[in-house]
Amino acid sequence: MLKRYLPILTWLPHYHKRLLGADLLAGLIVTVMVIPQSLAYALLAGLPAVVGLYASILPQLVYTLFGTSKTLAVGPVAIIALMTGAALSSIAATGTETYLQAALILSLLSGGMLVAMGLLKMGFFSNFLSHPVISGFLTASGILIAASQLGSLLGVESSGFTLIERLVTLVPNLASFNIATLSIGGGTLVFLIALRRHGKATLNKVGFPLPLADLIAKAGPVFAVVITSLVTWHWQLADKGVDVVGQIPGGLPALSLPWGDYSLWRSLLIPALLISLVGFVESVSMGQMLAAKRRQRISPNQELVGLGVSNLAAGFSSGMPVTGGLSRTVINYDAGAQTPAAGAFAALGIALVTMSFTGWLYYLPIATLAATITVSILTLVDIPMLRQTWRYSRSDFAAMAVTILLTLIEGVEAGILSGVTLSIALFLYRTSRPHSALVGRVPGTEHFRNTTRHDVETVSTVALLRIDESLYFANARYLEDTVYNLVASHPELEHVVLICSAVNLIDASALESLDAINARLKDSEVKLHLSEVKGPVMDQLKKSDFLDALTGRVFLSTYAAWREFS
Amino acid sequence: MLKRYLPILTWLPHYHKRLLGADLLAGLIVTVMVIPQSLAYALLAGLPAVVGLYASILPQLVYTLFGTSKTLAVGPVAIIALMTGAALSSIAATGTETYLQAALILSLLSGGMLVAMGLLKMGFFSNFLSHPVISGFLTASGILIAASQLGSLLGVESSGFTLIERLVTLVPNLASFNIATLSIGGGTLVFLIALRRHGKATLNKVGFPLPLADLIAKAGPVFAVVITSLVTWHWQLADKGVDVVGQIPGGLPALSLPWGDYSLWRSLLIPALLISLVGFVESVSMGQMLAAKRRQRISPNQELVGLGVSNLAAGFSSGMPVTGGLSRTVINYDAGAQTPAAGAFAALGIALVTMSFTGWLYYLPIATLAATITVSILTLVDIPMLRQTWRYSRSDFAAMAVTILLTLIEGVEAGILSGVTLSIALFLYRTSRPHSALVGRVPGTEHFRNTTRHDVETVSTVALLRIDESLYFANARYLEDTVYNLVASHPELEHVVLICSAVNLIDASALESLDAINARLKDSEVKLHLSEVKGPVMDQLKKSDFLDALTGRVFLSTYAAWREFS
Repeated sequence: MLKRYLPILTWLPHYHKRLLGADLLAGLIVTVMVIPQSLAYALLAGLPAVVGLYASILPQLVYTLFGTSKTLAVGPVAIIALMTGAALSSIAATGTETYLQAALILSLLSGGMLVAMGLLKMGFFSNFLSHPVISGFLTASGILIAASQLGSLLGVESSGFTLIERLVTLVPNLASFNIATLSIGGGTLVFLIALRRHGKATLNKVGFPLPLADLIAKAGPVFAVVITSLVTWHWQLADKGVDVVGQIPGGLPALSLPWGDYSLWRSLLIPALLISLVGFVESVSMGQMLAAKRRQRISPNQELVGLGVSNLAAGFSSGMPVTGGLSRTVINYDAGAQTPAAGAFAALGIALVTMSFTGWLYYLPIATLAATITVSILTLVDIPMLRQTWRYSRSDFAAMAVTILLTLIEGVEAGILSGVTLSIALFLYRTSRPHSALVGRVPGTEHFRNTTRHDVETVSTVALLRIDESLYFANARYLEDTVYNLVASHPELEHVVLICSAVNLIDASALESLDAINARLKDSEVKLHLSEVKGPVMDQLKKSDFLDALTGRVFLSTYAAWREFS
Repeated sequence: MLKRYLPILTWLPHYHKRLLGADLLAGLIVTVMVIPQSLAYALLAGLPAVVGLYASILPQLVYTLFGTSKTLAVGPVAIIALMTGAALSSIAATGTETYLQAALILSLLSGGMLVAMGLLKMGFFSNFLSHPVISGFLTASGILIAASQLGSLLGVESSGFTLIERLVTLVPNLASFNIATLSIGGGTLVFLIALRRHGKATLNKVGFPLPLADLIAKAGPVFAVVITSLVTWHWQLADKGVDVVGQIPGGLPALSLPWGDYSLWRSLLIPALLISLVGFVESVSMGQMLAAKRRQRISPNQELVGLGVSNLAAGFSSGMPVTGGLSRTVINYDAGAQTPAAGAFAALGIALVTMSFTGWLYYLPIATLAATITVSILTLVDIPMLRQTWRYSRSDFAAMAVTILLTLIEGVEAGILSGVTLSIALFLYRTSRPHSALVGRVPGTEHFRNTTRHDVETVSTVALLRIDESLYFANARYLEDTVYNLVASHPELEHVVLICSAVNLIDASALESLDAINARLKDSEVKLHLSEVKGPVMDQLKKSDFLDALTGRVFLSTYAAWREFS
């Protein structure tokens, strides 16, 4: 029981030296690699850069205690930072005390919701974010984030959390771009893209062993940070209009209990829910993928608890909403992390940097961070997926397109909510007009298929009608219409057999419709039969009076009905 | 084409004398019978009594042109009046000009929505009002209406549109009840209930032929109106505190185009939508039932148009929202109406009364109307249905119970919206955790059933897994878990056959899951096969790359797979 809620108890007792070496190395690499992105994502959310470091310490440490993934690295991530910024900027001005306060409240709310969902085993809730909606949301968010970084790359002001706001505030200032900032931002961008595309292969060609070449290519942001910081320091570019990170308060974050009035908490409820769900989906799908590679398993419901406690920790330690991040987790995994201890070591490493070395970050240009963000989020934009989804299913495409458009035009919340609503509405619409088929016997078998698609045997006085949907309120009337039209157009009918192989549910509304059909067919002297009724459905029908009133019989198989009537 | 949108063209050309006699008689009977209820429902909506008459004239006349039901009688009905009153009282004080104005706007909005839904063929929309939700709503509305009439029956003040508001305003005034009002109200109530329960049988026993006995029993409200009016006039009870209908402006309603500011229209949008849907459901289900009795058919989408135009007419002629009413339609049907002309004759009859005889209604006590309403809505309250639904399905019962409770506590809108939302949520929850079964062959047949319910043959290296649900985003991950758990617990497996007889849809999310399952099973050297994939689903799969990547085969029938592997 304790092990279930504290998964650390399952692996710590078996911890040994060989694991320690691997985990320490991974922790060191992650420490160095995630510092630039942590700073960048805090800025993306409109928060001071140091908040990104704070959010990488305590949340990751508590995830080590509560998480079930061996390799997930928890901290600020791009999408969640974007959503956080969008939520906060609608309640307070960037840089105000309320803005910082609201970030903490958002973390606490999101943490509380995640823990609650975990304890109530409500992980299935995230399933309602369909793949097309998530994929569309990621693509649109990638575009939004890239647009949000344009200003920093050029050294001009821009603000807002929709594409239009961004562009409207950016364009008038374009002429006043800063040449030094643009050089640093543009240079870093080109360097990072080149390194990502060709770095590994080139380095390998000039003699580096493959794993080292890979590591160097991935360390691009670290080089960029070091080089551009040195350049900015040497030429004193901060005086020439290049924005830098500047003074960061040293020391560990203070532990505090954020407070705020009721309306602040209330207005953050919906954003917190969306951040929780999106963060959980991002985290758990990556955790599952990596666990599968090593034939391990993670428990989605315990992951909810783990991520929830991490967010609570972020809220208490001056952080921001966190989740298992794509890039930081991949770095951790590739660096050879064996257990969650690697994450703990990375957290301690970042704590050390935060305590003693924030001075080194003074000259780090914001443009370098913007370039780092831009390159890493470009992986989110998946345009081929649009074509692929269009080809496969128009309704999935509609959900995806609406999510993309509304995320860009109206912002992240509107985008994701309308995507989810539309996918549910389309599914309901679909099930409200079920496909049905008159079937006949495939000659020489006991198998029955659609008379219009296959060459099958039929009997003129018997209609074998296969209903391809569960029968429930949304399609109950449709079922009546289908049967009545069938009987009206085939006056020679004596028997109608409803084949229920695809009927997984008959609710009270559908039961009334079946009663009505039975009575109406009785008037026309046509008998109603059922076949292939599944166990659970049959159990339920037995609780009603329908089976007593049924004019015909219930056949175990359609073939049994066929033998009876032919 | 014209006949489709003007159904009168289908029957008027064949109209002849025999029909005329029947329709004239039915029209006369309906005129007399529906006047008391029309006045009563207008009062129930918080409107002047005469509005009920106005709403029974033009709306019914235009329905004659556009409706497809031969016997439906259109006018104010109890539920719609209750919903109208609830909607209006949240925006304006009863008796004010704005209140009257809002009633007209509500009719226009509702009419516009109905016509739009009809032209867009969106009649299916009403299917999302499940039977349990409707039945619960009717029961709760019946209780609410009865409570709303208590004050009028006792001669004391009460107001509000939830049960609690009603009781809170009623109870403090109870002591000041008016003895004359109570006598009239209570006497009428007892008289009507007795007549309804025993009238027909008793009259038949003392020598009246059955149809006449039936008609007299149904005319109870007319007798009550006449007698209590005479009593009130004779003893001048209006001076002794008995509320009467009083002066009604004579003449036909003025035609007018209601106006009002944007916020008024906007705040009536949701109520108008709910009134449209509930009115449509009440009207179309009764229309269908009566049409079926005479082997006629009605067209739900054209009914939307017909009811919509009726509501537009109500909005332009000082009326209130209308629909096909239960009691007025039954009266019309029983009185022998043959064509919609009967409805037109009734409308003309009511117009005649409104023009010249409203003075006769001066002394009609409000308490008599309250008793009329109370008796007629008691038929809506269906308590046995609660037990029946509980027995059949807990989730249907939950939707019903929530609808009843919230309608009583929070009002009609909250009740119906939460009922609909809950039924959809429960359906989605259900489909997100599909039933699945390992099946085996029923010996000697080609039929396959659940291994735990039936005595069947299996092969240890082959898992035949029947998935009892369409595969879509909400259950895609669940499917993965099911298959992975199956493979993990049966290491001897070499083949997994997914039986898709109940799979009516595979959306893009589920397709990705199938891809993932296929890849994961490949790693474990287990082949994935499909069987009994339906035509439409197979068509869609062919548009993706899944079938190329599939490690196994697609079998037409499960038996074909069985033969291959056993």
